[in-house]
Amino acid sequence: MTSDVILLGHGSGGSLSHQLLDELIVPLLCDLAPGDQNDAAVLPPQNGRLAFTTDSYVVEPVIFPGGNIGDLAINGTVNDLAMAGARPLAISVGLILEEGLPVAELKTILGAMKEAAQKARVAIVTGDTKVVPRGKADKIFINTSGVGVIEHDLDIRGSGAQVGDKILINGTLGDHGMAVLARREGLALETDLCSDSASLNHLVDELISVCGADLHVLRDPTRGGVATTLKEIARQSQVEITLDELALPVRSEVSGVCSILGLDPLFVANEGKLLAIVAPQQAEAALAAMQMHREGSDAAIIGEVTAVADGKVRMRTSIGGVRSIEMLAGEQLPRIC
Amino acid sequence: MTSDVILLGHGSGGSLSHQLLDELIVPLLCDLAPGDQNDAAVLPPQNGRLAFTTDSYVVEPVIFPGGNIGDLAINGTVNDLAMAGARPLAISVGLILEEGLPVAELKTILGAMKEAAQKARVAIVTGDTKVVPRGKADKIFINTSGVGVIEHDLDIRGSGAQVGDKILINGTLGDHGMAVLARREGLALETDLCSDSASLNHLVDELISVCGADLHVLRDPTRGGVATTLKEIARQSQVEITLDELALPVRSEVSGVCSILGLDPLFVANEGKLLAIVAPQQAEAALAAMQMHREGSDAAIIGEVTAVADGKVRMRTSIGGVRSIEMLAGEQLPRIC
Repeated sequence: MTSDVILLGHGSGGSLSHQLLDELIVPLLCDLAPGDQNDAAVLPPQNGRLAFTTDSYVVEPVIFPGGNIGDLAINGTVNDLAMAGARPLAISVGLILEEGLPVAELKTILGAMKEAAQKARVAIVTGDTKVVPRGKADKIFINTSGVGVIEHDLDIRGSGAQVGDKILINGTLGDHGMAVLARREGLALETDLCSDSASLNHLVDELISVCGADLHVLRDPTRGGVATTLKEIARQSQVEITLDELALPVRSEVSGVCSILGLDPLFVANEGKLLAIVAPQQAEAALAAMQMHREGSDAAIIGEVTAVADGKVRMRTSIGGVRSIEMLAGEQLPRIC
Repeated sequence: MTSDVILLGHGSGGSLSHQLLDELIVPLLCDLAPGDQNDAAVLPPQNGRLAFTTDSYVVEPVIFPGGNIGDLAINGTVNDLAMAGARPLAISVGLILEEGLPVAELKTILGAMKEAAQKARVAIVTGDTKVVPRGKADKIFINTSGVGVIEHDLDIRGSGAQVGDKILINGTLGDHGMAVLARREGLALETDLCSDSASLNHLVDELISVCGADLHVLRDPTRGGVATTLKEIARQSQVEITLDELALPVRSEVSGVCSILGLDPLFVANEGKLLAIVAPQQAEAALAAMQMHREGSDAAIIGEVTAVADGKVRMRTSIGGVRSIEMLAGEQLPRIC
């Protein structure tokens, strides 16, 4: 690279674009030979239904305790595929770069993408890079889309929750959102907070093999947190979900910062968590499988599906009452992912 | 919608996000029932190789003569799939919205996306919406990714050009880039210019059925124009390509504005054009097929593959000379797509 910052010409499609691609992006992300760069990547035929998903990432700051926008973008899309019960096959990377972005920062981010893709065992196969003038974006926005294959006959979806099912989560609530917020606001407590950004496809493989058709719903509680995600599922399945406040795993540093700022961890974004809704006879086995897994040591059963209803979520509180849980209203934490 | 502009809360993942999705985005783009909204779309099993591609769109202005960022985003990704010889199956839409974007403008753009998808006969199946604060993006950026299926055994790729092959284009050069530039700069000549934004998958179906294995390369000359795209192909195929300047179809209004501004239509972006490189015995049949098609009335044979070489493009000029063609250097027209 002859420049140490991104120039408008890097988005021209011409020789500077090719230099950026050939010298930086392609070697860092996917090692595709220049002769193999075509308008679309070609994947071999697959046996099974296909899953397809997309997410754009605009997190600020782009580097935060526990990760950066790069691994976040890979993990988020891998997880969306995994939540459909799919094995992630291929990821696309769409970069929107602000003129003036330091090349060193881009390298850090691309390096984190490659590492996250390797951990998840998914290939980055196609991409696109645009550059906008200074002040027309904020450093870097990343879109990742993903294709996966569903190699079983299970029907894992938001409308699958049934009365009696147990609600499981694979660990603590709110780590990602509070780590990003603390870094952005320069809070002194920041050192104790760390994003949970992680890919969950290997954990999902475990859950599928343990629970089979008793695994009814999988969803990752990102924006809006566990509360909003469960509200979505309750509506899709037309049920009432009841949470136990005392069962919710929350790190003390997260609950501490949340209470200082007047936030509720139940509404804070996670990036390495999944909610699994499973038939009661498999709940303990699913919990044990989670707890054996690297991404599930703090797993817990946090509630159950209590009735047929028009999409209700309520919580048995620590002082013995019951309160209704609604979706996140307004914007609690902008640009958390 | 209770607000007539986009608010930060529309990107929260919470109740405002759901309102935006349920009342505007989903009905306009895909009619998916709220109960069917999951982390990933599920597609039926496919017979054949898969094509997968992504593009982000940052064009400014977002509405221009002949189209807007919405149809551009659909057509661009449909075309990238078609250039691999694939039938487009499914498109994802990732929106990055700037706080304050008028909802009316978003409606216009989403409406154009739906219409373009219907014309191309491709389904919009999954999406994501983020909102960034005022001044951190420029109205709207769109990522579209696409999945297609390759239902034949042809190997259409940039490395397939062979000595003797003819180079075809389905119409005039530079219409899109000059239409966007003229609108952006408020040029008086603008009324005569119109983007060529169009989906080309149906035209590709025709070419495949006419040429079969004699169809060697397909590529859409977007950023960097015909010159840069042919240079890419010449490098991938390790050949020399020779163009005939007199054969290049260019509208008089495009060449007029180009000469006033010192631009060369050969380097200006197109959004409804494809370059087809075909064996000589099929060139006339391919040309006739193009000319019969709605997107090919100004089609022409513009050159040929003249030698084995290390990626050269040259042009026989109108005055009888030969000049070397290089890739676009620097940034000629920023944010044209």
